[in-house]
Amino acid sequence: MKISELGEFGLIDTLVDLIKQDDPESDPNILIDAGDDTAAWQSDAAVNLTTVDCLVENIHFNLDKISWQELGWKALAVSLSDIAAMGGIPKYALFSLALPQKTNVEDVAELYKGILELGQKYNVKVIGGNISKAPVLFIDSIVYGVVEDPSIMLTRSAAMPGDEIAVTGFLGAAAGGLQITKKNLPFSNELKAPLINALNKPSPRIREGKKLAAGGVKCAMDISDGLTSDLAHICRASRVGAVLNVDTVPVHPAVKTAFCDNALDMALSGGEDYELLFTAGHDIMEDIKKQLDCPVTVIGKIVADDNHQVILLDGSEKIYKSSGKGWNHFG
Amino acid sequence: MKISELGEFGLIDTLVDLIKQDDPESDPNILIDAGDDTAAWQSDAAVNLTTVDCLVENIHFNLDKISWQELGWKALAVSLSDIAAMGGIPKYALFSLALPQKTNVEDVAELYKGILELGQKYNVKVIGGNISKAPVLFIDSIVYGVVEDPSIMLTRSAAMPGDEIAVTGFLGAAAGGLQITKKNLPFSNELKAPLINALNKPSPRIREGKKLAAGGVKCAMDISDGLTSDLAHICRASRVGAVLNVDTVPVHPAVKTAFCDNALDMALSGGEDYELLFTAGHDIMEDIKKQLDCPVTVIGKIVADDNHQVILLDGSEKIYKSSGKGWNHFG
Repeated sequence: MKISELGEFGLIDTLVDLIKQDDPESDPNILIDAGDDTAAWQSDAAVNLTTVDCLVENIHFNLDKISWQELGWKALAVSLSDIAAMGGIPKYALFSLALPQKTNVEDVAELYKGILELGQKYNVKVIGGNISKAPVLFIDSIVYGVVEDPSIMLTRSAAMPGDEIAVTGFLGAAAGGLQITKKNLPFSNELKAPLINALNKPSPRIREGKKLAAGGVKCAMDISDGLTSDLAHICRASRVGAVLNVDTVPVHPAVKTAFCDNALDMALSGGEDYELLFTAGHDIMEDIKKQLDCPVTVIGKIVADDNHQVILLDGSEKIYKSSGKGWNHFG
Repeated sequence: MKISELGEFGLIDTLVDLIKQDDPESDPNILIDAGDDTAAWQSDAAVNLTTVDCLVENIHFNLDKISWQELGWKALAVSLSDIAAMGGIPKYALFSLALPQKTNVEDVAELYKGILELGQKYNVKVIGGNISKAPVLFIDSIVYGVVEDPSIMLTRSAAMPGDEIAVTGFLGAAAGGLQITKKNLPFSNELKAPLINALNKPSPRIREGKKLAAGGVKCAMDISDGLTSDLAHICRASRVGAVLNVDTVPVHPAVKTAFCDNALDMALSGGEDYELLFTAGHDIMEDIKKQLDCPVTVIGKIVADDNHQVILLDGSEKIYKSSGKGWNHFG
């Protein structure tokens, strides 16, 4: 059925039913989760976090390359990743959807199934939203979270000269997935699957972000635009420079196999990995390596630099020129 | 200058500068207001409110009929109106903008000036947002607020049989403004100005919402879709019916003059008035009339009705058939 047949309020009813049905475990702090002018919840004194992230059809995704369920997952994941990068705990989400008239109700329901699937994994409740008409599909995901102890919130502006720079997991996978889906590259399913999955169903590093904050790390962000571009954001916010040893960057193994010579540049600037990029002194970094279940790789050092540059060095300490550049809307 | 020349991060810098410059009065509870993965603020134990509302180019507005500054004002106003309808106090706002590549930087700055102008009026701080590329302009305004006393929060679901139904202000003005701008109607400027202003620069009833809640009103919502349509939302949420005496509806005087026979239907179903629609017992209603500085007009009564109908009666107690229907995306 097209949403034009059901109408705005019929569609809202369908989605609210889906949310209540898929998520029967109620949170006693939620006072109003649907059907009023705003959502409402009771909270203790806290440091509150809020973020909004947007996915626009044909800019961030193409509906013939991602399922509606994956799209819902991804829409929530990108905002959860922002909460992870602060060391926070996500609590509630709102979705603002703008949809073409011809959209199928079943597809919107699938989108919400993807949202709810990821939400359940991190105990994040959908408590509201908005629906509108638009020429292309537009999804804003708004996530509200808290930091349990404000003194250990992670920020982009806390990097110090002498800090080691590290990343969680492997990089370049989402960029690999994007190349594969865009160009229909003829790799084996075994090679393609993890990369396409990294692109379409990213895993926000919520648990890791909390452990970083608890373990004494002060500076972090998530890698959404691309490693070098995001490291430049940290340098600018912290008024420092960075030296990055490109040979140490943990390029995703499947990207190495599939893209050979391009793999490193994809890891440096591909974006959408949603891994955590963070800095800390050597001792804290050693502890963190032990505490996290995922790989943690030191890839460089923060240095004093009034120009806030990111310098890339190869294995023989020569300047490395990356062919890629990070994500920049309008850039 | 086009935003494509400045790039995403240049545009963000420009807007952050504008926000800080226009709004130098800092709120000590704001911990992070720009440039990190999320916004962050400290709060006491509270009942929290959040709402998101969307304006899409060519659906909700046309850029040749509204200035960028008015558009910014309106984008914030529609969400503030939701907070008003809960009896809440708005605190912080985030904006998610999706913009065509060809957009002028100066226009986006004007949009933000409109946001900041209204924000200052109600002490609402812009603490974050997102910018993306899109084929048409999309604006999501996200507002966070609090209710000082949770026991006096206004909801749509608290109407009781016997309650009087009332509205603040006058209705139909925004619908009048829409007709005038759409059809370039040749009325005098004196007649046109208040109606176009009602459409493009609505005033959220923040103070009035707080007074309703403090004065013992339990049930309210804002009129965004249209009076009868929004009253139907209250009836459904409260599981009651309503009898509305159309002759008592406070039609905006300029709408009466300009649109004569159509004026009442425009007031009943035009939408976008952002007045408050509320219900309360007679004694409370009499007190509220004295306490509010704006007109308060009783327009009907809540009745017991398992079908949750809204019945419109004319002056001779006959059923009134309205020619209009409220706003319904996809409807």
